Amino acid sequence: MQDAMLKIIPIGGLGEIGLNMMVVEYQGDLLVIDAGLMFPEDYMLGVDLVIPDMEFIRRNKSRVVGVLLTHAHEDHIGALSYLMRDVNVPVYGTPFTLGVVRHKLDEIGLLGQADLREVQPGLRLVVGKFEIDLIRVGHSVVDGIGLAIRTPMGLVVHTGDFKISHAAIDGMTTDVNKFARCGEEGVLALLSDSTNVEKEGYTISDREIGETLKGIISKCRGRVIVALFASSISRIQQIIDIAHQNGRQVVYNGRSIEVTVGIAKSLGYIRIPDGMEIGIDEIGNIPDDQVVLITTGSQGEPMSALARMATGIHKQIKIRYGDMVILSSKFIPGNEKAIGKIINNLYRRGADVIYEKISAIHVSGHAFREELKLMINLTRPRYFIPIHGEYRHLVLHARLAEEMGIPKNRVMLAENGQVIEFDAGGCRISSMIQTGRILVDGKGIGDVGRSLLKERRVLSEDGFVAVTLAFDEETGIVMYGPEVISRGFVFETETGHLVDDAQCVILEAIEDIGPDVPDRIEKIRARIKGDLRKYFNYTIKRRPLILPFVLEI
Amino acid sequence: MQDAMLKIIPIGGLGEIGLNMMVVEYQGDLLVIDAGLMFPEDYMLGVDLVIPDMEFIRRNKSRVVGVLLTHAHEDHIGALSYLMRDVNVPVYGTPFTLGVVRHKLDEIGLLGQADLREVQPGLRLVVGKFEIDLIRVGHSVVDGIGLAIRTPMGLVVHTGDFKISHAAIDGMTTDVNKFARCGEEGVLALLSDSTNVEKEGYTISDREIGETLKGIISKCRGRVIVALFASSISRIQQIIDIAHQNGRQVVYNGRSIEVTVGIAKSLGYIRIPDGMEIGIDEIGNIPDDQVVLITTGSQGEPMSALARMATGIHKQIKIRYGDMVILSSKFIPGNEKAIGKIINNLYRRGADVIYEKISAIHVSGHAFREELKLMINLTRPRYFIPIHGEYRHLVLHARLAEEMGIPKNRVMLAENGQVIEFDAGGCRISSMIQTGRILVDGKGIGDVGRSLLKERRVLSEDGFVAVTLAFDEETGIVMYGPEVISRGFVFETETGHLVDDAQCVILEAIEDIGPDVPDRIEKIRARIKGDLRKYFNYTIKRRPLILPFVLEI
Repeated sequence: MQDAMLKIIPIGGLGEIGLNMMVVEYQGDLLVIDAGLMFPEDYMLGVDLVIPDMEFIRRNKSRVVGVLLTHAHEDHIGALSYLMRDVNVPVYGTPFTLGVVRHKLDEIGLLGQADLREVQPGLRLVVGKFEIDLIRVGHSVVDGIGLAIRTPMGLVVHTGDFKISHAAIDGMTTDVNKFARCGEEGVLALLSDSTNVEKEGYTISDREIGETLKGIISKCRGRVIVALFASSISRIQQIIDIAHQNGRQVVYNGRSIEVTVGIAKSLGYIRIPDGMEIGIDEIGNIPDDQVVLITTGSQGEPMSALARMATGIHKQIKIRYGDMVILSSKFIPGNEKAIGKIINNLYRRGADVIYEKISAIHVSGHAFREELKLMINLTRPRYFIPIHGEYRHLVLHARLAEEMGIPKNRVMLAENGQVIEFDAGGCRISSMIQTGRILVDGKGIGDVGRSLLKERRVLSEDGFVAVTLAFDEETGIVMYGPEVISRGFVFETETGHLVDDAQCVILEAIEDIGPDVPDRIEKIRARIKGDLRKYFNYTIKRRPLILPFVLEI
Repeated sequence: MQDAMLKIIPIGGLGEIGLNMMVVEYQGDLLVIDAGLMFPEDYMLGVDLVIPDMEFIRRNKSRVVGVLLTHAHEDHIGALSYLMRDVNVPVYGTPFTLGVVRHKLDEIGLLGQADLREVQPGLRLVVGKFEIDLIRVGHSVVDGIGLAIRTPMGLVVHTGDFKISHAAIDGMTTDVNKFARCGEEGVLALLSDSTNVEKEGYTISDREIGETLKGIISKCRGRVIVALFASSISRIQQIIDIAHQNGRQVVYNGRSIEVTVGIAKSLGYIRIPDGMEIGIDEIGNIPDDQVVLITTGSQGEPMSALARMATGIHKQIKIRYGDMVILSSKFIPGNEKAIGKIINNLYRRGADVIYEKISAIHVSGHAFREELKLMINLTRPRYFIPIHGEYRHLVLHARLAEEMGIPKNRVMLAENGQVIEFDAGGCRISSMIQTGRILVDGKGIGDVGRSLLKERRVLSEDGFVAVTLAFDEETGIVMYGPEVISRGFVFETETGHLVDDAQCVILEAIEDIGPDVPDRIEKIRARIKGDLRKYFNYTIKRRPLILPFVLEI
């Protein structure tokens, strides 16, 4: 009975954007799909990145038969190196996906211990007790796949990140026929990407984007600078083709672009006419209307190539009148202000700037509502499980499936950790496993907790005031101080001498607690804390952290 | 010659969203238009609000003849109380605008010294050497005005914040005829709101929004909760009307809504059928389908009424299945994540949620491109000056004016501080005055500078480590410490005893600098800083602030 059970166990990505990671379990075998990270949110001060809590996988590592990666984006592969510290199994992925993974592992010295196995879309892969058809899907990075996972319990279709573009420029359109064949065969459950369920209609095609870009670039008489995600290989190919048609050469700027273009070239995912590429130092030697610069920084990252151009500190590129800057990428929520600032500064330096708010030069890699409906209709699943989204996206996708005729009791709205169990009797959310977010800060993994983030917030908003004070142990006489030092806090105000007054507050506190009082040092510490807190709150309405260093010598 | 000059002097709002403030100067008289604030940006850690640097006005205060407020939004009136500390002149505004100002000044005890003078749209106001026609404009708050400022040098039209809605529900449509009459009379310069220049087409009308809201609310069988900006008086009126039609009573939640509704009611801007309003404590006594709750929190503010409902800590309202929550407001950039989190949590508690991404239940108060074109065509100005926008908005609005036929040399693209001067010979940017942003933090105005913000950022990301150490002055022997204390920083790691190791690093530093070394204390301090910095960077890749307290006793 236990054996005939199929389980779908979401580790991350169900209830959040990012951290995509899932386990499929059948007869004891565990297949891991993706191992993604998330970039920290604003309140996670000082945190570098976030990975899913993989405790469940660690505890069951002997049963893991493999890791299968759907595509090369960080929110699907970025936690792989952390998973590899605990679990050493084959990692499957398409050539470009593994190309990126290989590069990342090599950089941190983990490539030697990785068992990477290349797979091709269209083929069938056997891993443990799972037979998996790899189905090509269109997305904003090349070489993405969806999965049709066969077990005796039934066929589970996992879309990966996808959109259905019938006019992809890389020839990598979603293999709708394959999904349709799954539908004919009978799909037990469809797990589908919910990212864009709030968007009506269809994604526009990459070809249309290409036409718009061609129109802009061919009219341009100066330098053209295109900022985009380094992983947008097809877009880079489009830019190269347009540059070629317009007699322009291509320069890359930004390490991540050089890396991904290198990988894509070596694998044949990008084709560049001979002699078209030049180095950034040669840019001064050719006329303005014969160059296209492809650069990073489309999200307003402060030290990116584009940000340095916008602020005038880029070594080789000084923005000037006649330059055309194209931001061919999404404004990711949270980055709008940083991107806006760069656009403003580029305009101030005389450049013309084209961005998604004023021209259709970018398209999402995730299916809009009509495409999501098509996927449901192609696969006609018995059960529907929305994946990849915050809770509201999952809810809206669940409702969409209900509107498409899937009965409410066969739409499984689950979040991370909720185990979805299929057996002969049906499907249910059966249990809960441990999941969560691990904050990675510097070299520390998971040592940043709530209280530390709270301390950082207090420090960031009000700074601190440190008081140093030393007594003679025997006489109780003040030997040193009170010395008052602050950071992130203002001591000089129009109203006068805060430091002097703070010292008085401290001395009063000491006077009240004479040398004979038991636990004198502790009491003085507490008193200084309390009195200074009141004092600063009253005088300047701030609440710095108060740190009394009171010593007995 | 000097006397026949008209100057337009932008203090804030030209090159940024918010801080709107401008001076018009003619024959020595200065008229101030608006005094707005800005809410702090992410990097301004701990800052409460931002106001414009008003040094120019302060220096010329004897020449200021009045302050004229265009409408009641914070980005137009929020800095008035700061201006009033230096300049005591009449403040002109429409009834609702002054109602809000009166309440704000009363709260901080400044009402007594304010000379507030009510004006009506459609009338002519004489202030110093200026004759000003007040022209009604439609906006997202009632009682907004644009200005036609007459001087012998010519007529200057200032739109204020506006949109052109031909179907406003409050009857407060933009008075297009008046603007047209200005155009016939001859407009020297048009200063027009650039906020939405990136948006094609027209704003949809408030009536359409009303129809959508009516459709949603009339179908609802449970409680209806509408979150919106407290200043959206017309929208509140719509909600009340729809509630009335559906046999629902109205409850307000959130102090700012109670305040603005109170002001609007007392001035006749909002009409409420008798007995429709009930207190929040009575909500349990009436059936779910007979109540509409109007609440604050539409921007995801962490302690707002809506946020407390979403997290289940609201005293009176527990969200449950059947509740319908409508967020009738914009997702302001920077707030998306906070708003998204609230929506997710409301869904988790069983509510249905409607928000602008999935339904047309909000419209901007700022004109889209077609409306901006109409304003230019109505007024046919000789000179065009885009106002209210970041630099890119000003550029795009300037280009729009050029496309409309205004010659490039008569489109004045100016930023804060750039004085635009008109005389018989034409128009030019003649000089630069001091402007800037003043950060207000607690009771401190302007005492938070760049270096302080940088300290706060370091503290927020990496925390600090304080080392206390005391020597005997004569013998040089360590009497106390080294004691190591940290905040916002991790000391316990998997790898072991960072504190012990840090103490070793410190003791080594001391050993190297013997008792006879001159400036020993200074050298030890520097050495501890340097060595610990290297140590933490190497072991855990973090850069906390290092604070050595080294005493001689």
